[in-house]
Amino acid sequence: MSSQRATAFVPGHVTAFFSAHPADDPSVAGSRGAGVTLTDGVTVTVSAGDASDAASDETGSRTIDGRTGSVGAAEDVLAELDAVAADVAVETDLPIGAGFGVSGAAALGAALAANAALDRGRSENELVGIAHAAEVGRGTGLGDVVAQARGGAPIRLEPGAPGVGELDAVPAAARVEYVTFGELSTEAVLGGDTAALSAAGEDALDRLRADPRLPTVMAAARRFAREADLLVSEVADALDAVDEAGGEAAMAMLGRTVFALGSGLSDAGYEPEVCRIDAAGARLVEQ
Amino acid sequence: MSSQRATAFVPGHVTAFFSAHPADDPSVAGSRGAGVTLTDGVTVTVSAGDASDAASDETGSRTIDGRTGSVGAAEDVLAELDAVAADVAVETDLPIGAGFGVSGAAALGAALAANAALDRGRSENELVGIAHAAEVGRGTGLGDVVAQARGGAPIRLEPGAPGVGELDAVPAAARVEYVTFGELSTEAVLGGDTAALSAAGEDALDRLRADPRLPTVMAAARRFAREADLLVSEVADALDAVDEAGGEAAMAMLGRTVFALGSGLSDAGYEPEVCRIDAAGARLVEQ
Repeated sequence: MSSQRATAFVPGHVTAFFSAHPADDPSVAGSRGAGVTLTDGVTVTVSAGDASDAASDETGSRTIDGRTGSVGAAEDVLAELDAVAADVAVETDLPIGAGFGVSGAAALGAALAANAALDRGRSENELVGIAHAAEVGRGTGLGDVVAQARGGAPIRLEPGAPGVGELDAVPAAARVEYVTFGELSTEAVLGGDTAALSAAGEDALDRLRADPRLPTVMAAARRFAREADLLVSEVADALDAVDEAGGEAAMAMLGRTVFALGSGLSDAGYEPEVCRIDAAGARLVEQ
Repeated sequence: MSSQRATAFVPGHVTAFFSAHPADDPSVAGSRGAGVTLTDGVTVTVSAGDASDAASDETGSRTIDGRTGSVGAAEDVLAELDAVAADVAVETDLPIGAGFGVSGAAALGAALAANAALDRGRSENELVGIAHAAEVGRGTGLGDVVAQARGGAPIRLEPGAPGVGELDAVPAAARVEYVTFGELSTEAVLGGDTAALSAAGEDALDRLRADPRLPTVMAAARRFAREADLLVSEVADALDAVDEAGGEAAMAMLGRTVFALGSGLSDAGYEPEVCRIDAAGARLVEQ
């Protein structure tokens, strides 16, 4: 029952704070922390071309927003699903490399769409696990994929893929605004000494578990960014401006990005992108 | 930060097959099985009236589709959250008592909306656990709540509330049609001898885990209904008619209800309600 073509949507995810938990087994590796998934996200369409049977070793076409290009973690997912020969189109309005989990979203979207288009018969947990392992393997993220699979405002209680990790969430519906000042290398931060960062992340998680509300996510995130010494000047300025305007904002980990609840950034004089918390999490939208 | 009024939507859930796993601790009790959540569901609005502080012992207003009425499991949730004094309005297009999990949806919707309206500060897992325990305690369902919280086409691998049970899902987007011929008492079936039913349910789950595809859900469900001796004549007739028309249909557990993928029931000459698999799961829609 192969539909030959399928499209998946995966929400963007801004991490508010985290602790890093590397491990040799990528399904065990991951992060604890919390964040917010966004109705702005990544759409991945997988089409089985003529050469798309599992035996083919030709690589299908790859585009990002219509131009030739591919995402490493998504390529690893396609290889795992014997789907390298399929054509894959990634589309997103989100900035890349700015802390929105675009890499993880592309990997998870590729997993869901390839499974449906090529009728690979994997379960949702298996597909999330494959995308999580690919993302961790590439060093481009540690917890976006499991958060994006759930949607809402996920809390990552225990690191790892489905069946290993454990999730909860802050029950919340809200408008979210964001501005981006440029890229920050996830690989560079995660590849360095993460001890101080992880200690700050564990403290933040304790505070959120004691009070799972959205304002607590934002306050814990601001304190985490200071304690982990990750604030950059444009971000610090924007956080101050939103605070002075009476709003709630935080830095997206890891990017030169600020996100705010409600109209926090608009009220502070910025011209932000506007979306909402995504309630659904990653899903097939067409098959 | 109490918003005083909040609305939650919870998808309907038709169970395809299940095994019953009673236990003294309601967070451990539940069911294994699989089903499909629906974009037709239950909307619950909780408003904190003047008398809505925790100390009040006056019960607020209760309506179902605009008429005075309450749902037992939802009342137990409101008591647990010190929210009995709030006004609660339940609205649904789904038939009640026909296998759509309306009772569980009302309980889960009440939990999400009361938590937001009265700023009770519970996490999503806590709220799902409270609704699950209320539903199990009332004997009106064993697995709808955790499935409705997740959305999609959930597989209940292990029974119980979040942190105890375990879920996976069939990755699928699809149109769903349904017709209802009347009520079937969940309490009567679950209160009787469930040994044969549960053995058939475990077999069905094994088949689905080996092949997590939507057509397998439907085939396993039809076999389960026969083996568990739950088929009623109108349902059996409709299943035969859809099969003859080349479609995929199954009986909703526990109701005199048939659901079909795509246009299965229309093609067989029925005039069904039409919806889709709900990707999001239970969520706050307004707070």
